[in-house]
Amino acid sequence: MKCTVCKGPAVIDVRRHNANFCREHFLRLCRDQVAKAIKDFGMLHPSERALVAVSGGKDSLAVWDILLQLGYQVDGLYLGLGIGDYSDASGDMARAFATERGLRLIEVDLPTDHGFDIPTGAKAARRVPCSACGLSKRHLFDEAARQGGYDVVVTGHNLDDEAAVLFGNVLHWQTGYLGRQLPVLPARNGFPRKVKPLVRLAEREMAAYCVLRGIDYIVEECPMAAGNKHLGYKEALNTIEVTSPGTKHDFYFGFLARASERFAADAAEQEQLQACAICGAPTPGEVCAFCRLVERATSVPVELGRRAAR
Amino acid sequence: MKCTVCKGPAVIDVRRHNANFCREHFLRLCRDQVAKAIKDFGMLHPSERALVAVSGGKDSLAVWDILLQLGYQVDGLYLGLGIGDYSDASGDMARAFATERGLRLIEVDLPTDHGFDIPTGAKAARRVPCSACGLSKRHLFDEAARQGGYDVVVTGHNLDDEAAVLFGNVLHWQTGYLGRQLPVLPARNGFPRKVKPLVRLAEREMAAYCVLRGIDYIVEECPMAAGNKHLGYKEALNTIEVTSPGTKHDFYFGFLARASERFAADAAEQEQLQACAICGAPTPGEVCAFCRLVERATSVPVELGRRAAR
Repeated sequence: MKCTVCKGPAVIDVRRHNANFCREHFLRLCRDQVAKAIKDFGMLHPSERALVAVSGGKDSLAVWDILLQLGYQVDGLYLGLGIGDYSDASGDMARAFATERGLRLIEVDLPTDHGFDIPTGAKAARRVPCSACGLSKRHLFDEAARQGGYDVVVTGHNLDDEAAVLFGNVLHWQTGYLGRQLPVLPARNGFPRKVKPLVRLAEREMAAYCVLRGIDYIVEECPMAAGNKHLGYKEALNTIEVTSPGTKHDFYFGFLARASERFAADAAEQEQLQACAICGAPTPGEVCAFCRLVERATSVPVELGRRAAR
Repeated sequence: MKCTVCKGPAVIDVRRHNANFCREHFLRLCRDQVAKAIKDFGMLHPSERALVAVSGGKDSLAVWDILLQLGYQVDGLYLGLGIGDYSDASGDMARAFATERGLRLIEVDLPTDHGFDIPTGAKAARRVPCSACGLSKRHLFDEAARQGGYDVVVTGHNLDDEAAVLFGNVLHWQTGYLGRQLPVLPARNGFPRKVKPLVRLAEREMAAYCVLRGIDYIVEECPMAAGNKHLGYKEALNTIEVTSPGTKHDFYFGFLARASERFAADAAEQEQLQACAICGAPTPGEVCAFCRLVERATSVPVELGRRAAR
C-alpha cells in the first residue's frame, strides 16, 4: 500500500477518498480538511479567542492540536461529569495533554460546582443519561465561554457524529433540529458561536491522527452511552459505508447543500428566548433546562430564585 | 399471547402497534389499514377501474386480494421479465391466483413482446439489473393502463419498501425523488394515477396475511436483486426497528406530514415532458428511457423510428 501523494509506504487507507497516505501526508490531510471546513463555513478567525470543549477523547484532543498547528488561539475547557472511573481517567488525559504543551485548561466539576453527577441527575430528572449530560454540557460550555470572554466554542464532533445525529433527526423528521444542524451556529441571544471543525473527518481518522501524533486519549466509550440510539445510528451508517464508501459524507454534506435551508424557519420558530430566572442563561421558558435539572438532582427548590427574579 | 381485540389465542404480534391479533382480527387489521390509506390519501374510488401490477410475490397478491374484498374493481397485470426460473415460478403464482378466483390477468412478456430479457437488457445498457427492470416495469405498467383504459395503477409497495426507498433518497438528498415520493402520484402528462395502498403495512405482515388467507406466493427474492443497495437500506432500518419499534412508520409518515412538501418544487422542475419520438410515451427527452433500453438490448437502431416520427 503506497501513499497516494508521495508513493512512500502508506500507513492508512481512506476509502471514501479512494486514497492511501503515509504519516506525513495523512497528518497534512487532517489539517487541510480542518482548514477547508473553517474556510467553507466561516468558522473562526485567527484574531478570535476560541474555547475547545475537551473530553479527553480522540476528537477533542485532535481538534485542539490541529487548531493550534493552524495558528488559532485556543484554550481548553474540561467538564467533570462525575461518571466514576471514566471521568477520572478522561480528566487525567485532558490535563496531561494541556500540561505537556503548556496550554490553558479551564475546569468545571459538576459534582463540586453544582452538587450532582450525571448518573444521579439523570435518575432524578427521569431523563436518559445522555440527555441530562448533553444539556449540562451545552449549558456549562456556554457559561464558561461567556465568563471567559471567548468568541467561539469549538467541539470535536466528527463526520460520523454529525451523520448519526442527522440520521436520528431525519428518522423522526425533527424539523426544528434539522433547521439548526449546521457546522456553525452563529452567536445569538447570548449564546456564543459554536463550530465543529472536524465535520470533514471520520471517527477512524481521528483515532489514527492521535496515534500518529502520539496523543494519549481515553479509548473507552462513556459507560453511560452503551446501547443508546446514537450508537445504533452510527452502526447502521457504518454498515452502509462499508459497501458504499462516501455515503456518510454525501449524506451530511448533501443535507447542508440541498436540504438544511428548507428547515431553517422551523428552527427559528423555536428561538424566542428570555433570561433564565435563576441563572440568567437564555431559555425559551422561565427557568432553563439546566437549572430545572439542578433543582431535581439536588432537591433545592427553584421557587426562591424565581421569585427573586420577578 | 392473546388477541388484543377479542382475547382469544393470537397468531401474530405487531410490535409497532404494541398489539397481538388472532387470525380474524389480523386480517381485519390489514383491510382496515388499506382502507385508511385509501381514504387518507384519496387513492381510489369504487367507480374507478384499477390495474394492479402483480409480480407473484406476497405484496402484489395481498393488495389485489384486499382491494377486491373492499369492493374495488381490480384487474391484474403480470410482466414476464425473462429472469429464468424466477420468472417462470412467479408467473405461475400470478396465473394460479387469478384463475382460481376467476380474475382477469393481462400478461406482457418482455422477451416475446419487446425482444429482450432483463439480464441481457441490463448488460447491454450497462445498467444494474434493478435499474433496467424498474424503468421497464414503470413504462409497461403505464402503457398497459393507457391501452386498457384503466384509471389507476396499483402497486404492492409496503411500508418497508417505501421506508427503504426514502432512506436511499435521503442518504443522497435526491431532492427531485423526495418531492415525488408519495403514496399517490396524480395522473398527469399522459401517466395514469399511481397508488400504493399497502404503505401502512409492513413486509412481515403481508407475508402473514398471505399465509393466513391461503395465498400461494413466490417466497424467493428476485435473484438479480441480491446484494443491491435497496436491500442494504432495508436491513439497516430493520436493525433500528428491532430496538425502536415504530421507527419505520414514523420515518415514512413523518416525512409525508412534515417534509415532503418542501421538496415538491424540485420534483415539478423535472417534469417538462414531451411525447417519445418512438412510442409516444411522455418523456423529458426526445426518446424515452425504455425505447433507448430496447434499442441497446436488441441492437435495433432507433434512428428510423425517430425520423418517421418527425
